[in-house]
Amino acid sequence: MLLSNYKTRGKKPMKYIESKKNDEIKQIAKLSSTKYIKKTGTYLIEGFHLVREADANDQKILKILVTENHEDDRLVKKYYDNAIGISDDVAQSLSETKTPQGIFAVIEVQKKEELTDLSGQWVMLSDVQDPGNVGTIIRTADAAGYDGVITSLDSADFYQPKVQRSMQGSQFHLPIYRMDLHKAIDLAKESGLIVYGSEVNDQAESYTELEKTSDFAVIMGNEAHGLTEDVLEKTDKNIYIPILGKAESLNVAVAAGILLYGLKI
Amino acid sequence: MLLSNYKTRGKKPMKYIESKKNDEIKQIAKLSSTKYIKKTGTYLIEGFHLVREADANDQKILKILVTENHEDDRLVKKYYDNAIGISDDVAQSLSETKTPQGIFAVIEVQKKEELTDLSGQWVMLSDVQDPGNVGTIIRTADAAGYDGVITSLDSADFYQPKVQRSMQGSQFHLPIYRMDLHKAIDLAKESGLIVYGSEVNDQAESYTELEKTSDFAVIMGNEAHGLTEDVLEKTDKNIYIPILGKAESLNVAVAAGILLYGLKI
Repeated sequence: MLLSNYKTRGKKPMKYIESKKNDEIKQIAKLSSTKYIKKTGTYLIEGFHLVREADANDQKILKILVTENHEDDRLVKKYYDNAIGISDDVAQSLSETKTPQGIFAVIEVQKKEELTDLSGQWVMLSDVQDPGNVGTIIRTADAAGYDGVITSLDSADFYQPKVQRSMQGSQFHLPIYRMDLHKAIDLAKESGLIVYGSEVNDQAESYTELEKTSDFAVIMGNEAHGLTEDVLEKTDKNIYIPILGKAESLNVAVAAGILLYGLKI
Repeated sequence: MLLSNYKTRGKKPMKYIESKKNDEIKQIAKLSSTKYIKKTGTYLIEGFHLVREADANDQKILKILVTENHEDDRLVKKYYDNAIGISDDVAQSLSETKTPQGIFAVIEVQKKEELTDLSGQWVMLSDVQDPGNVGTIIRTADAAGYDGVITSLDSADFYQPKVQRSMQGSQFHLPIYRMDLHKAIDLAKESGLIVYGSEVNDQAESYTELEKTSDFAVIMGNEAHGLTEDVLEKTDKNIYIPILGKAESLNVAVAAGILLYGLKI
């Protein structure tokens, strides 16, 4: 094993791991799988933007891993006792991208209180399966100032790396829950929210025709099949986006963007 | 080589290719690269939806390739003289997906007249680089009834497989051009279109405040850097989407969806 080049600044030298076959690295690499995230209650984030967002939003950073060119970064200094120097080879093995930025952190999955009441504006996802779509919709809900997002148990899990890359740290800005969608809809209705289903059918109304309201939930459906019958039956009203050209439909994340903004402004 | 199981229906037996190392298959596989698409003037499309769209929109289908389970498909009968039976192994080698549908077509790149005048509503992309974003924006422009899309020369090329998967056949519904963006903006202005740049700056106006107009072009910028100074200087007005929460920005395809619908309805 090579000696670390990290300056010690009078402290004990930072731990340095060169091989991707190292046991600790192998454990960390497992944190891209939903199973291990659930088991350990921790997940891996990658890149400066996300690690800085986690720090800025008071998330518990358990480990920070950096390649040598980042040894003087403010975050590395702040979390020095939990910092590990890694080789480019290790960085590549942990990364989701071809050219890793060389900074990772292991953080705690946020503990959430059980939802007992909803207020304001919520987005619900019914079996949205593409990780990019789930992450992008959460980011859009954040941008549009929604109060939270609830995904069904069959939607892509939000701690997996591809969802995270699309969320861009929005998981630190608004509450995101994964739960039985029927329970979530019941809760929304008991809390006095109007529940909109995004779907084209005979009873649907164009989102442009709706009277604006301040407390509502809007449900987006699966990429291929939309909303299921049993979810549609529970909604108060179904809304659609008019297709003005020849496309058969819109991408679900784009549709969410149009509705999330359209229902507010 | 196995004998084909295709029924010949009194015609000569359909050509059957079992190996992905076959010369014709190797040539077809190259059609996922921009270089070969340009060289041959043809490209490869995949899946029932796209092949049916190509047929329904009178595109020139040069070859159709199908696995055995699709031998009775209407399209295979229609293009029987240009049909090739392929093994699952060949289908997998040509496919962009893990579970190919087993139908492909080689079609001609559409010949387009040179643009000399623009009218109606156009979308322009300035160096949008993610193939999924380019394809999704073209699909959205189609859905929102725009008259065409122009991408800069540094945007992702629209005949590559990932763009196509996101376009979902919209290339058959509205004209899409790839050209020098400055020339495109000049042309739009000469044609009397108002040119909007999507950008947050001091002179920008919220899209919600704009007076609606029937002839305009809206330019979306690069994922990381937005619009360049020289493009911004040429626009008539810059418009932005208000961020109501804590996200720093929106995904460019989502932003395009909000603006493309917001500018029309």
